[in-house]
Parts: sequence; C-alpha cells; structure tokens
Amino acid sequence: MTRKTHPLHSNTGASTPDRIVVYGHDLINDLLGSTSLSQMAFLALTGRRPNADESAVFDAITLTLVEHGMTPMAIASRLTILGAPESLQGAVAAGLLGMGDRFGGGAEAAADLLRSTLAGVDGKDIDTLAAHVVTEHMMAKRPVPGLGHHIHKPIDPRTPKLFDIAKSHGLAGRHVALMQALGREAEARTGRSLPVNATGAIGALCCELGLPKEAPRGITIMARSIGLVGHLIEESRAPIAREIWERAETEVNDAWFAGEKP
Amino acid sequence: MTRKTHPLHSNTGASTPDRIVVYGHDLINDLLGSTSLSQMAFLALTGRRPNADESAVFDAITLTLVEHGMTPMAIASRLTILGAPESLQGAVAAGLLGMGDRFGGGAEAAADLLRSTLAGVDGKDIDTLAAHVVTEHMMAKRPVPGLGHHIHKPIDPRTPKLFDIAKSHGLAGRHVALMQALGREAEARTGRSLPVNATGAIGALCCELGLPKEAPRGITIMARSIGLVGHLIEESRAPIAREIWERAETEVNDAWFAGEKP
Amino acid sequence: MTRKTHPLHSNTGASTPDRIVVYGHDLINDLLGSTSLSQMAFLALTGRRPNADESAVFDAITLTLVEHGMTPMAIASRLTILGAPESLQGAVAAGLLGMGDRFGGGAEAAADLLRSTLAGVDGKDIDTLAAHVVTEHMMAKRPVPGLGHHIHKPIDPRTPKLFDIAKSHGLAGRHVALMQALGREAEARTGRSLPVNATGAIGALCCELGLPKEAPRGITIMARSIGLVGHLIEESRAPIAREIWERAETEVNDAWFAGEKP
Amino acid sequence: MTRKTHPLHSNTGASTPDRIVVYGHDLINDLLGSTSLSQMAFLALTGRRPNADESAVFDAITLTLVEHGMTPMAIASRLTILGAPESLQGAVAAGLLGMGDRFGGGAEAAADLLRSTLAGVDGKDIDTLAAHVVTEHMMAKRPVPGLGHHIHKPIDPRTPKLFDIAKSHGLAGRHVALMQALGREAEARTGRSLPVNATGAIGALCCELGLPKEAPRGITIMARSIGLVGHLIEESRAPIAREIWERAETEVNDAWFAGEKP
Repeated sequence: MTRKTHPLHSNTGASTPDRIVVYGHDLINDLLGSTSLSQMAFLALTGRRPNADESAVFDAITLTLVEHGMTPMAIASRLTILGAPESLQGAVAAGLLGMGDRFGGGAEAAADLLRSTLAGVDGKDIDTLAAHVVTEHMMAKRPVPGLGHHIHKPIDPRTPKLFDIAKSHGLAGRHVALMQALGREAEARTGRSLPVNATGAIGALCCELGLPKEAPRGITIMARSIGLVGHLIEESRAPIAREIWERAETEVNDAWFAGEKP
Repeated sequence: MTRKTHPLHSNTGASTPDRIVVYGHDLINDLLGSTSLSQMAFLALTGRRPNADESAVFDAITLTLVEHGMTPMAIASRLTILGAPESLQGAVAAGLLGMGDRFGGGAEAAADLLRSTLAGVDGKDIDTLAAHVVTEHMMAKRPVPGLGHHIHKPIDPRTPKLFDIAKSHGLAGRHVALMQALGREAEARTGRSLPVNATGAIGALCCELGLPKEAPRGITIMARSIGLVGHLIEESRAPIAREIWERAETEVNDAWFAGEKP
Repeated sequence: MTRKTHPLHSNTGASTPDRIVVYGHDLINDLLGSTSLSQMAFLALTGRRPNADESAVFDAITLTLVEHGMTPMAIASRLTILGAPESLQGAVAAGLLGMGDRFGGGAEAAADLLRSTLAGVDGKDIDTLAAHVVTEHMMAKRPVPGLGHHIHKPIDPRTPKLFDIAKSHGLAGRHVALMQALGREAEARTGRSLPVNATGAIGALCCELGLPKEAPRGITIMARSIGLVGHLIEESRAPIAREIWERAETEVNDAWFAGEKP
Repeated sequence: MTRKTHPLHSNTGASTPDRIVVYGHDLINDLLGSTSLSQMAFLALTGRRPNADESAVFDAITLTLVEHGMTPMAIASRLTILGAPESLQGAVAAGLLGMGDRFGGGAEAAADLLRSTLAGVDGKDIDTLAAHVVTEHMMAKRPVPGLGHHIHKPIDPRTPKLFDIAKSHGLAGRHVALMQALGREAEARTGRSLPVNATGAIGALCCELGLPKEAPRGITIMARSIGLVGHLIEESRAPIAREIWERAETEVNDAWFAGEKP
C-alpha cells in the first residue's frame, strides 16, 4: 500500500554529542543550576519559564497534590508492589491509573467552568455571574464543581492558604474571585456547607496562571507520582498491603462459605 | 478462618476537618508557601526536608531526568492516548511502564556499586578502589555501570555540570570522586571513550544526598511523569503518534504480503 | 473517627484446603476437564455457563478480537518491553491502556444503540426503526456506530462470517437484523460504502447473547491481552521496537536541528 | 544523523480489503467457526494450532488461572475503577501489574527447573534426578519451585486433576513425572507437607506442551485478564472497593493522631 508520509516533529528534546536542548532551552547552560523542578514542570506544560510569582503559586498548587494519605490509588500501588516487587514503575503506574474522572477530574471541571463563564464577559459583575452559574447547576441538579468536602468543613483549610499565596504574588484575579463567589452563593442558596475545596482552588489558580486545559489533570498526575513513590518506599520499610489484602480475602472467603452470597 | 489482625500504620498523610499533616508536617502552616515541589519530593523520599544545598543538587538531578526527547516511553505514551483519549493517566502510566531495568536501572546500579565499594573503607585511596572495581568488571566481562554513552562522547555534557553544582554546594564527596575515578580508570584500561554518563553522575549524587536505595529509580519515575505529561500536551497540539503507527503498520503489512515472513 | 462497617462479599472465588469454588462452581469437579477457556470467560461475564450454541458464537466473537496486526497498542507494548524486559505484565498492561474509547468503544456504542432502539418495541418493523436511527444520526451529523471501515470495503469480511455462525446456531435475532438494516439504510441514504464492520457485528452478537453492557469492552480487553502476549513473544524472537523508536527519534532530532520547529 | 534502516516484519496479522491473516492463517476461512479461543491463544504462543489432546490440556491450564478470589490484583483493580470509572482498560491493567515475580513467577520457575533438569539426560532415572535437585535446593536453602501451598494442604486439589487430564490425553510425560517426584522427595526429606501446587503442575504441563519459556507468565496474564474483567463487572453491581479503602484510611488516620507513628 502506498501512503503519503508526514514528517515527525517535536519540541520536547533534541541532542547532539555535546549539546542537549529541552523545550527549546539549552539544558546545560540555561536550565541546570538555575531552574527548579516545578519551573521545569511549568515549562513542560506551557512551553515558557514561569516568573518568580508564577513559580511560587505553581509550587503551592503542586505541593498540595503530592500526598493525600491512604487513598484508593495509594492502596492499589502498595498492593501492586506486593505482587511485583521487581517493578517500581509498575506499582506507580497502577496507582496513577486510579487518578481518573472521580478523583482527578474535579480541578479540571472547576477550571473549565471558570474559564467558560468568564470568556467574553470582561466587565461583568462577578457576583451576578456566580448567581447565574449556581442557578443553572441547581436547576440541572448538578453540583457546582470545586465546592464542598466530606471531611474539610466548614472550610477546606488549603483553600484560604492557596488564595493567600496567589494574592501575595499578584495572581488572585477574576478566576479566583469567581470561584469564591460561587462558594458564597451556593452556601447562601442551599443553606449547606459548601466551601471552595482544594480542587476548586487549584482549578482557579490554573486559570490565573494561564495553563492549558489539560493542566489540572496533568499536574495532579505529576504531583501524585511523587506521592506514590513515597508510599512505596514506606511500604518497603513498614508494609501494610499484605494485611489489607488478607483481611479482605479472609472476610470474603468466610462470607461465601457462610452462605451469604451477594 | 480466624487470623491475627495487625494494625495499619502510615506516616504519609493524615487529616482532621481543619488540619492536614503530610510526612509529619502541617501542610498549611509548615509546607505551603515555604517549600518547593522538589523539596517535597525529597521529603517524600527521605522523611526529612533538605537544606538549601541539598535542595539545589536535588533540583539539578531531577531536572536532568524530566525530558529525554523521543524515547520509547514517550512514543508508547503518545500511541496510548491515540487509542484512549479519555485517559491522560493511562497514557502517562503506559509511558512509565517502559522505565524499567534497561532505561531506569542505570543510576540505581551505579549508586549500588558506589555505596558497596565505599562501605567500611573510609581511609582507603579512591584510585585504588576504582582500579579494583574496574578489574573485577573486566574479568567478569561486565560493563561498569554509569560509564559510556552512545551519543554523548567523548564526554556527557551533563556530568561535569552536575558535579560542578554538587561541588559548589559542598556535596561532591567520596561517591563523586569514586565515580570520576572509575571513568578515568576504565578509559585508561580499555582505551575506549567511557565518560561518566548522566546516570552515573545521578547515581553518585543520590549517594552524596544519603537518599534511600530506591531513590534513583523513584526519582526517575517522578521526573519522567512530568516529561510524559509534556509529551501528551504536545501530542494533542501537534500529533505524531498516528504517523508513527501507520508507517509501521503499512510496512509490516506490505512486507507480509510480499512473502517476506520473518 | 467512627464509621459504620459494611460487610465484604464476592461470588468470584472462594476456597477451603480441599475445595475451590469459582463463580459458584466447583473448579475441580464441575469445571476442569469439561469447560473451555471461552466458556469460563462467558461465566465470568454473566455468572452462567453458556450452552453449546452460545459457546460457539462467543468463541467466534472473541477470536475475532485477539489479533489486529501492528496496532498502536501492539507497538506501545513492544516499546515497553524494550525498556522493561523484566516485566511482561507491564508490557501487556501498556498495550491494554490504549484499548480505550477510540479503538475499544465501537462495539460498546453499537450494542448500546441496538439495545436502546429495540427496548420496548417488540412488534415494530426493523427497517422502520433503522430508518429512524439513521435519520437521527444524519441530522446530528454523527456516524452510526458499527458501520464503515477504512480498509475493509465494500464489505468487512468478518461480518458475514460472524452473522453466518450466529445464524447456524440460532442466535441471529432482532439485534443482528437491526444492525444489518442500519448498514443498508445508511448506504442507501449517503451513497457511501458503509458496511457493518466487525465491531458492529460483535456489538450485535453481544446483545443476542444477553451479555452485560460492559461486555463488548471487557471481551475486547480479554481477547487483546492474548494477542499482546503473542506480540511480545514475537518481539523477543524478531524485535522491531528498537527500529521503530530509533527511526522516530532520529527524524525528530534531525528536524529540530534543521530549524523545523513545530 | 544518518542511520542504517532495518525492515519491519511481523507474522502476527496482515490484511487486504477482503482478507485477514492472523498468525499465517486466514481468519475468515480457516479460523472463525472452527477454532476455540484457547486454541487461538495456543496459536499466539507457539505459531501452531494445537491438536485435540493439546487443546484439552491447554484449556485446563488456562481455566485454572482465570480466578483466584480476592487477590491483591483483584483488589487493586477494583480500587482503580473506583477512581477512574471511565477506563475499564485502566482497571484491568492495574490488576495485571501485580502479576509479577511473586504471584506470576512460580510456574515459570517450575518450568525452567524441569526443563533444565531434563535437558540432555534422556535415559536417566527420574527419582535420581529429583533427589539431586532437592539436595541442591536444600543446601542452598532455597525452596523447590512448584511445591507447597499455604492453604491447599496436604494436597492442592488442582494438581491431581490437572495431571489426570494430561494423562488421559497422553500428555503426562517426563516433566510431569519429575514434578511429582520432586514433591515426594521434598516431603520425604523435610518431613513437611510439600504437595505439588497448581503453579508446579502448570509449569510441568507447559513443558509437556512444548510451550515457549515465556508461556507460564504469558498464560497467567491472558487468563487473569479474564478474571479481572469478571471482578470489575461484579464491582459495578456489588461494590466493595470503597469499603476496603475507607476502612484502611480511617484506621491509618486514627492511628496517626493517636500518636502511633510507625
């Protein structure tokens, strides 16, 4: 079969024997020694280096996402290394695979909502916009993304801290204001505790930094891979996966023979 | 079945409604706003916060590992999102799965060698140790880990830069000296170009920082997950996976029908 | 924190020292020696053993899905074992991760369409239903799932064979008839070649067998894992992954330095 | 950079508009309707179709491996779909990633041992060979692969059944005899219950069938992917992942605040 060939391009990395270019920057002379890991992550996401203010806010966002305790992802990762101790990468991959729509989609949904709400309405009053969004979601019986938390109430302590950091670096603009207004409005209308949660705050800050739409999910994956490595090192020193497995297996087995079939 | 239950413990993360603790530190008051992402990664690996010197060297190590161009892992990641555009986490996971013994094991092997060679030989001359190690490897016909590069020769430009950064932060100790001596000795004995490569340099620096034995591989996974997200964002803007696929499929298909069965 | 505990149940498997129960059947006395692998897969999907007719059709469906040549999934799998030769499971997992919405979602979409179209319309004429569905899709400018193929035209040779097998086993009912009518109607209305493709045929047969809604995707994963193991064994004997990688890397690298940045 | 190009070949699959070839066989005319899924798997592993006896034994092997109850892999898979319900393939992949050296390596180790012990010793007495192997392992304080089970004792009920099936199909040759002799010898020498377990039996049968060395692991992955899909369908109907997660998270959290840091 003949087919037209299209050329392959990429700006991610290129090298000669004595030179390495990453995202268009000379790794040896421009990046190493003057760039932090999170600045490199920002560069990977956007193609440009962050200034000091952006860098501080980006550090705060990513830091928040590294470690959330004994999540389903962390448990899956630990159970995986129990069976495949030869493959640290496999155990991290197994953990990342649970970072999908349910746990990894919140910040993305919040960012999408903020961006679409503020697109082309530069002069409009934030509270009016928030009221409109909350009404729409209530009528459709859909929760407003980025609001509410099952543990952290009446406020999610990460949110005011993240917004303070953004403000002190001049990066708490209209997206942050709208996210806060959505929280106030939703609480007033429903009478329930609906604080802006960490994913809402992170979604707003991704917008303030002008990050691409994949960024909330991408940042979550980057940060969580760090946390998962931490879990796996702890698991090798103080294992708990076998105990979690054997408890579940024993209970299921006993229940089955007791005739309690589901 | 009755079984003895063992308690589940972890120091990774814990929380109350108004408090979040990560690696034993208060996230809101002790970490956010004063800690960089790479300091958090160091904390995840070791349980302690790095000082400024350690932090600079750790940034340099991780930075080096983020992006290596169109690697098999990057291509696998891009091919995966072509088939499963709904799952960014799946595409990153697929890419990480190739970070195994062949591409991810080098720094670990170098660090293991340096650590075991220097264990309990505090006063011994570095050059004598290096000569012994090189002799052993030559007799066993095994390459010394951390030496040689198929593209970056006669020197890997990352190595002197990484060692300079370590030296300027007071962290170029005996492990760095041994790694350098191994390179000199191996080149002298074989007459071939065997520079200390980036994985050798990173292995040595992991030892200087006192990181745990899983660190070289763990750091590689952390850093590469950042690079893979970068590849996937580029793939969504300037795709190449379909072209790589169709070229291979067409060639294999044509070859089969031309009777050139393998 | 106190929380109400819910019991853990499963009907998948349970065992005592001398007995093993799988899906409620005694593995030793009821399954081994009298059950084929695909009958076991049917049991895993539905909780019941297929009769001989169902079994024959199920074998045909799954067989069709095992191997599709040099797909993106197969290439990703081969690239992964190149980097992680220690982990066959990692390479298969990497390949499966590309079996998402784009390549794995077609049969599911076809089955969903057939089921929803036929729900509660027992007496209705199949051609009338097909005309309605095609009109709806044309107005919404959406393709009808299960129709058309970029290579196999004017007919996909798998489809008549699969439908023949179903017919000879008395399992070509209204879902098959509707799928065929959709193809006829879509071709008539658009004037284009839109044969029922293999995913459309498989979607229809999953409905005829009364499989659960996850079945099309689940069967694809089951079958493809067999095919991916086949690719990896071939890769170990007659490798091509390194060649695919190096061609792409060289081209991207050369293009970058030629100033052709994307 | 110029590089020599090597051609890409594969015998897995190839197609023209009206023809599909899989492993060198015409899918439509030679395979569909006359081949079972497990015969296709045998073909994928070996490049040849099994005869009826081989097919029966291969069905028994693969059947045994489909479902082992609430394993770490099954739990990891269920935890993954909890977080990423959009990706069935991701949840199966996460489960497969735990099928590594600890749980997936046993049959491979047994097969390797049997093959290497019997290589070039055609006339030698099986019991003498077994005594030698057991002595070697006892001196090296290594367990003989394929012997012993923590639940199934004094015998693993799968083993006699698998060997009976092999015998009735004329496929219980010297590898089976050696595996049985190893069990007898090890029990006699140690005084402990060391029955040939299912992985030992499967390892022996893989040798009898002349399967390639990757087969034990490859078959395990193929079969387990079927079982994992079964788990995920059950999880969608009768979920337990959230309960397993929340129990562990609550216990870890409570323990941390109770000051019981590990």
